[in-house]
Amino acid sequence: MKLKRTARKSSGTRFSYTGIRVRDLQRSLRFYKEVMGMREVSRGKTKAGGIFVQLRNPASSQRLELNYYPVKARYHEHYDSGSELDHLAFWTRNVDEQLRRITSKGGKIAVKPFSEDGYRLAFARDPDGIWIELIGLDRKKRK
Amino acid sequence: MKLKRTARKSSGTRFSYTGIRVRDLQRSLRFYKEVMGMREVSRGKTKAGGIFVQLRNPASSQRLELNYYPVKARYHEHYDSGSELDHLAFWTRNVDEQLRRITSKGGKIAVKPFSEDGYRLAFARDPDGIWIELIGLDRKKRK
Repeated sequence: MKLKRTARKSSGTRFSYTGIRVRDLQRSLRFYKEVMGMREVSRGKTKAGGIFVQLRNPASSQRLELNYYPVKARYHEHYDSGSELDHLAFWTRNVDEQLRRITSKGGKIAVKPFSEDGYRLAFARDPDGIWIELIGLDRKKRK
Repeated sequence: MKLKRTARKSSGTRFSYTGIRVRDLQRSLRFYKEVMGMREVSRGKTKAGGIFVQLRNPASSQRLELNYYPVKARYHEHYDSGSELDHLAFWTRNVDEQLRRITSKGGKIAVKPFSEDGYRLAFARDPDGIWIELIGLDRKKRK
């Protein structure tokens, strides 16, 4: 597993990234790159047979790792939907526009846009059904 | 929902944080704060009845949000273990020592420490069973 060299300067323990399990690596890469604007930071293969691709948006250091386990990989499992991962949150300048962008690419809506406490919010689903929160300023309220 | 004011300077869409669902907020706060060294950034309640607490380690901007849904909250659900969240990765100076720290506080081991490609790795479980990856340099190999 390769990590960015900058990580070596840090000490102690610190949260580094979130790894999600994907059932179709190319499908998920298309979603997170083409629709959510992320770029590939690194990719590799573990000795246990898993493939990982790390992504981030140019304007953020927050990293997301896609984990793909081929059928013969040690950690391959039947995919079940569960409760652990509540949502992945993306700060978005224009929530309504980004949601339209997601649906135009075939993405599904989980919760339609709404306003709360000065923010504009909406939830979509990634290709595996993971809830994607879109959050930005409620611009109508501020003008 | 309150976010840090610095977020307002950014434009476009960018991954902001990961939200995990917790069944016992105090138990999870103890784990992520006392064992994993995270600190509270913000907390609040959504109109749908959910409680959120955002955490980060002092040396990292990566944020983790704990989402707790009381029984009467809109998004409360029966908790099922699923495949979406593969792991949360923590960069750790001393993987073996941090794993001992986790087990001494009652945490469970998922995968015992091993070395791979110059890194030291181990996996533990958080209070809800989420896999916590500990990753650091394989110091024995480097000396």
